[in-house]
Amino acid sequence: MLSKNTVKFIKTLHQKKYRNQEQKFFVEGGKSVLEVLNSDFEVELLLVTDSFYESNQKLLKSFDFELLIVTQKQLESVGQFQSNDSALAVVKMKANQYFERSEEELVIALDDVRDPGNLGTIIRIADWYGIKHLLFSRQTAEFYNPKVIQASMGSFTRVNFYYGDLKEVIEKWRCPVYGAFLNGINIHKLENFKPGILLMGNESNGISVELASSVTSKLTIPGSGNAESLNVAIATAIFCDNFRRLSVP
Amino acid sequence: MLSKNTVKFIKTLHQKKYRNQEQKFFVEGGKSVLEVLNSDFEVELLLVTDSFYESNQKLLKSFDFELLIVTQKQLESVGQFQSNDSALAVVKMKANQYFERSEEELVIALDDVRDPGNLGTIIRIADWYGIKHLLFSRQTAEFYNPKVIQASMGSFTRVNFYYGDLKEVIEKWRCPVYGAFLNGINIHKLENFKPGILLMGNESNGISVELASSVTSKLTIPGSGNAESLNVAIATAIFCDNFRRLSVP
Repeated sequence: MLSKNTVKFIKTLHQKKYRNQEQKFFVEGGKSVLEVLNSDFEVELLLVTDSFYESNQKLLKSFDFELLIVTQKQLESVGQFQSNDSALAVVKMKANQYFERSEEELVIALDDVRDPGNLGTIIRIADWYGIKHLLFSRQTAEFYNPKVIQASMGSFTRVNFYYGDLKEVIEKWRCPVYGAFLNGINIHKLENFKPGILLMGNESNGISVELASSVTSKLTIPGSGNAESLNVAIATAIFCDNFRRLSVP
Repeated sequence: MLSKNTVKFIKTLHQKKYRNQEQKFFVEGGKSVLEVLNSDFEVELLLVTDSFYESNQKLLKSFDFELLIVTQKQLESVGQFQSNDSALAVVKMKANQYFERSEEELVIALDDVRDPGNLGTIIRIADWYGIKHLLFSRQTAEFYNPKVIQASMGSFTRVNFYYGDLKEVIEKWRCPVYGAFLNGINIHKLENFKPGILLMGNESNGISVELASSVTSKLTIPGSGNAESLNVAIATAIFCDNFRRLSVP
């Protein structure tokens, strides 16, 4: 049975303050919940509907977290999805951990990307391209925001990240740094691509002045229309696709 | 002064039913409002804050629609933006109009893209690449949905669209049709690109069975990670970027 206290507890996790305090977050929807169950994240509590339980009995029986059978209505009342007929998991956060970059690795760095939907979409893009590590400035949206988790479509389980001082990390790594600028080199003319950091800037202001000087390759996505800019997740994807084209002949 | 009736009227335009009945929609935020004022859309009513009025007096005086000076709080109460310190316009819809495709033109066709954010982002992408015409299946999100208008960042003023039977139009045009499939040709290996239709499918189901047989080039975006798919707007952008690379040497 779903107690009032459990309902109240999950609802507090809608707020960043309580997520940080508890070091827990929640994951909604059947697909994402299955991905988190199959990942190295530690699930603490799982709410499932009858039908989700039936379809996944074998998997669910291999775990020993608290499992509650609830109704679709209850799932929808504790979570943020308009419609959820499957599951919601309460999961332990991972510690914010610095990582080293290996030589042939492309890392995505985000300089104050504020929109959770954009962050989640970028995580999904990273996962598509096999990018394992992301660097976030401290003002970047929170990885465990429910909208980030939702937009990442389960990909949040397959990337590692570090929130910290981008300038410091970039200086330490001494690798190529690619950044989007309106007056850079046409990305279609780029040759001799070497993996390094793909630095993407804030939705309104782009890459900060402080970091712009660290960019070793200023790149531009060629267009011929009248839009002033592209959405940051869109631009990230176009860069990754071009880097992939240049890396895998 | 902002009357209760005007407030009520604008609020009805949050709903599709009333937008269709009135054949009007609304545009929020300074940037988008300036874009709509500089477009061939007909503005019927404009709410502006003092400061937006001061900064744009000359432009605003060249129009003869109803103009009301309001507070930021009033703007936020009638619109959908959490924060809006500039303007909101009530604008007349354009008629749904079939268009002919010229021979060297790339047209984006959407087969039941349901999410308004995705539709708005795709409109912004089209505008970046100078794509003037979009085709929408009847189940595609509504062009005048406030979330579409917001995500398009003003680009909605620079594209034309037609909601209709995609199958019929595709058969009439007899041009190359490019579509995303998981087992298609690697888009990086594509040669001899000829403009035609870029057909993008529904968020969950992809291109419908009915339309799949009309696709003349099945294309795949190469990746090496574990994400099952890319967001439809992301995939649209990657296709457009590759087509641009193949068209502009």
